[in-house]
Amino acid sequence: MVKRNSRLSALKAGYLFPEIARRKNEFAAANPQDPARPETRIISLGVGNTTEPILPYINKGLVDMAEKLGTREGYSGYQDEGLPELRKKIIDVFYKDSFSSDAGSDSFSIEEIFISDGAKCDIGRLQLLFGPETTAVVQDPSYPVYVDGSVLIGAAGNWADTGYKGIVYLPCTAENNYFPDLSKVPESSIIYFCSPNNPTGATATREQLMELVSTAQNKGSIIIFDAAYSEYIRDPKLPRTIYQIPGAKECAIEVNSFSKSAGFTGVRLGWTVVPRELRYAGGENINSDWHRVMGTIFNGASNIAQAGGLAVLKKKGMEEIRQLCDFYLGNAALIRNALQKLGISVVGGDNSPYIWAHFPGRDSWEVFEEILKNCRVVTTPGSGFGPSGQSFIRFSAFGRRSDVQEACHRLTALKV
Amino acid sequence: MVKRNSRLSALKAGYLFPEIARRKNEFAAANPQDPARPETRIISLGVGNTTEPILPYINKGLVDMAEKLGTREGYSGYQDEGLPELRKKIIDVFYKDSFSSDAGSDSFSIEEIFISDGAKCDIGRLQLLFGPETTAVVQDPSYPVYVDGSVLIGAAGNWADTGYKGIVYLPCTAENNYFPDLSKVPESSIIYFCSPNNPTGATATREQLMELVSTAQNKGSIIIFDAAYSEYIRDPKLPRTIYQIPGAKECAIEVNSFSKSAGFTGVRLGWTVVPRELRYAGGENINSDWHRVMGTIFNGASNIAQAGGLAVLKKKGMEEIRQLCDFYLGNAALIRNALQKLGISVVGGDNSPYIWAHFPGRDSWEVFEEILKNCRVVTTPGSGFGPSGQSFIRFSAFGRRSDVQEACHRLTALKV
Repeated sequence: MVKRNSRLSALKAGYLFPEIARRKNEFAAANPQDPARPETRIISLGVGNTTEPILPYINKGLVDMAEKLGTREGYSGYQDEGLPELRKKIIDVFYKDSFSSDAGSDSFSIEEIFISDGAKCDIGRLQLLFGPETTAVVQDPSYPVYVDGSVLIGAAGNWADTGYKGIVYLPCTAENNYFPDLSKVPESSIIYFCSPNNPTGATATREQLMELVSTAQNKGSIIIFDAAYSEYIRDPKLPRTIYQIPGAKECAIEVNSFSKSAGFTGVRLGWTVVPRELRYAGGENINSDWHRVMGTIFNGASNIAQAGGLAVLKKKGMEEIRQLCDFYLGNAALIRNALQKLGISVVGGDNSPYIWAHFPGRDSWEVFEEILKNCRVVTTPGSGFGPSGQSFIRFSAFGRRSDVQEACHRLTALKV
Repeated sequence: MVKRNSRLSALKAGYLFPEIARRKNEFAAANPQDPARPETRIISLGVGNTTEPILPYINKGLVDMAEKLGTREGYSGYQDEGLPELRKKIIDVFYKDSFSSDAGSDSFSIEEIFISDGAKCDIGRLQLLFGPETTAVVQDPSYPVYVDGSVLIGAAGNWADTGYKGIVYLPCTAENNYFPDLSKVPESSIIYFCSPNNPTGATATREQLMELVSTAQNKGSIIIFDAAYSEYIRDPKLPRTIYQIPGAKECAIEVNSFSKSAGFTGVRLGWTVVPRELRYAGGENINSDWHRVMGTIFNGASNIAQAGGLAVLKKKGMEEIRQLCDFYLGNAALIRNALQKLGISVVGGDNSPYIWAHFPGRDSWEVFEEILKNCRVVTTPGSGFGPSGQSFIRFSAFGRRSDVQEACHRLTALKV
């Protein structure tokens, strides 16, 4: 009979979010909501799932394209690496300014921009470029796909106590202000770096990203920069793309998404930048390999989603995503303040939709259960994001305003 | 510096369809169309890309959902493994009858149906279940992703002359009526099997599929059954799903898609069936691994596409896809007849949208170039699908009716 891929057995039990859903459902079954008592309703500040409707101008972009597919003139089939118009617009909106003002180099050509069905899916595929022999470096805590994707392609080795032997975890803790000690990055590695960070909410400064790029240059490493939350940055001094840092085009791939800025979590649209300057040790061009990988195991993002993306990048669409991110940042401020009032130490929530709350000496899942039981609020236990996430809880600012207000009110019941 | 995944260097030059596009563009640049002479326009019967608008009832499903995303009540985010309603409907429409009439076993539960962004993407991901040590068996010729996806995960070995050392190619030729000699299937292998076949257009009979299932049972192998063209089957005696064959639930995964039936090549929607009975050699459950793989590197199909899929599966939607497939089958009949009139031996085009034409003793790319030059018609060279595709040309029936008629007229200029 056919054997199981041995890497699958190395994957730790359930993916974090299904496990949270399971515990929530178990609690809900044992403690059913009483319709007469709204305080018995469970509120989720767990998964980073958007809750607000798509705003009108962007929504019209989606609707118009769906309608066009029913007409002879407007119909389209396979989109390959994405609409050229969308790829050009992404360059104009997100990358032109960075280059002219900061790096002094040319911006990208559309052959360097790849449209996809989302950042998580692209991160899964990107690992195929480097194969199982390459060491992966992650911020600890980190979004699960960097580690679990590495496990699937055989680059992570076996599990030992709190982490995989083949992965280098760089702790991001209160002590180092949630920015890792980069002297620990090994030679010729792949560095996954997420800013604004999921889960900590910390956003790297220009100086920190300069240190990251020079580390990659000195170690012959490649950065996979996850910028999925860049539209939440409100401090104008903080870089929104790694390509604002000189030298990044020679050592960094950037992944981004319309999910959290435009509310496209269900619509599915993202992009990846693979600069043509990027080379492997043997001198082979990484950009052309990525064209080949995408052509082989992917078949394009939905044409309706791409039309929505085009609407996002128009002036009115950009105003709408600003408005939408401001709304979630308003939620974040409420949660941040509520926790701080309780004397809980927090980071994030200012330039990111996540608030990372510290419960020193406590177990994350124990705090998760306590908040679920006492406040009927679902959160995410920090230890699910890696060993250094122990004793932390991630609060997500994605939710209806009234739910967030009610959750903040209930949190006062917490004993800390 | 970071090394290239050694498997990427094992991938043969360009993916087939980009290479065809390149040659077409080269020809078009050297021989520009004369607007006054319609006969100078290039017509494509190459890529299997749908060309007809989405029909009204199904289109309304897409439009309505796009509109709903702009409302508070209708908005939705992450879809995980797909809308339960869609998964249930897929079971009712495609699998209920097969079971009650043929296999006498229960049909599926929704936990066995996984919604995705398309068959090609799912086939790429499915290979992660079995890892690089498992031998892949393909029909030769075959759709490229079975082989190229195996190369990417390291299961194919090196290239040698006409194929990869680690892949077992089962010739499907005129001599065996395009059904392979299954006695060559090795123990504990993964058998990729596509029916109606891309590229040959041959559709396996019930007896042939019974032989396939019993081979898998006897060899302890697993079938990955690609049924992406099942809606083109018009002969009621031909099975439309592998699960019409008793025993298939214990040895087969089935992949299918809305691309070619509903014209969703650009919309992106497919599904995969992973029965809970499926086990690895060690007894581990394959279905739960697939939940884990999908949760790790995929984030759901577009909610708009899924609403379109739901419309497809209503009575009116099913009538529309029948109508659409009939239209393309009408094209196929025209191409088939035109080739046969020229004395060319063909298979397919009756229960499939592809016609596989034999040019004995000729090189496929040479015939491709000749048809491009003399008829200004783009086709697909059979050798691009594997060593046994040499001397064949694939004609695709996806196109406007007037284009197909004009192409058939021009083909009379062929010297055969």
